[in-house]
Amino acid sequence: MDEMRGSLGTSSSLSLRLGQALFSLASLLFMSVGVQFYSYSAFCYLVTIMGLVIPWSLTLAMVDVYSIVIGCPFRHLGVTVIVVVGDWVLSILSLGAACASAGVIDLLMDIGRTYSAPKFCNKYQLSVAMAFFSWFLIASSSLSNFRLLASWR
Amino acid sequence: MDEMRGSLGTSSSLSLRLGQALFSLASLLFMSVGVQFYSYSAFCYLVTIMGLVIPWSLTLAMVDVYSIVIGCPFRHLGVTVIVVVGDWVLSILSLGAACASAGVIDLLMDIGRTYSAPKFCNKYQLSVAMAFFSWFLIASSSLSNFRLLASWR
Repeated sequence: MDEMRGSLGTSSSLSLRLGQALFSLASLLFMSVGVQFYSYSAFCYLVTIMGLVIPWSLTLAMVDVYSIVIGCPFRHLGVTVIVVVGDWVLSILSLGAACASAGVIDLLMDIGRTYSAPKFCNKYQLSVAMAFFSWFLIASSSLSNFRLLASWR
Repeated sequence: MDEMRGSLGTSSSLSLRLGQALFSLASLLFMSVGVQFYSYSAFCYLVTIMGLVIPWSLTLAMVDVYSIVIGCPFRHLGVTVIVVVGDWVLSILSLGAACASAGVIDLLMDIGRTYSAPKFCNKYQLSVAMAFFSWFLIASSSLSNFRLLASWR
């Protein structure tokens, strides 16, 4: 089987995984450092999901590094199915968390305009932007591995 | 090529499309009849997306009916690619809209508990639930057609 760009055990997969972990970490830090995120359910949900994405992406990045070091792409049907399902679930959850947080920020800014200045809104917005980037990279990984699975021989 | 469950031109695809149109219509009606949805961006976004899903699903339902009547499943590579991409984009948009609205409803109920009773929250919640059902059916259609595309010979 030819090496497929973005599929498990390739250097492009490694860069996707590192990007996911980086953006999730940035989202987590913007949301949780010095900001009262725990007052809003959507923000707590975003922090939880980003906290799940980081270990998942780092674990798969280690698998990629191992495959690159031994010089042969990782090929195991069961593991690929788990990775595709895991990526798919995490991409749905992270998109949901990012959209819910974006909706809440929009409402907070509206309320703020009417009653009092919204606090921390820039940090919330940056966190959500990072979560969207992270979602985009997870969805790319998921599609690459799904394509690999669909062409399995 | 064997008939693939849920792919364009089959009776299971027809039921998925009718389900999508029905749930989207229900979501649209719960959100827009007698409720001030236009005060919140997330709800306007939900109404827009549900308004896009209904004609899309009904058009594809007509293609399904035509295929069932002439007794041969629809097979055309270009059209299948368009359907897969359209379904994928609409499933992402409808999930985003449903999650954003759910986040906003949660915040409105929190605010309502503190300051005044939230109005129309039950109708908003029903609308979002219908949007989630609609998203689930669109994602199923998208996956079925993607599988058909991946096994194209």
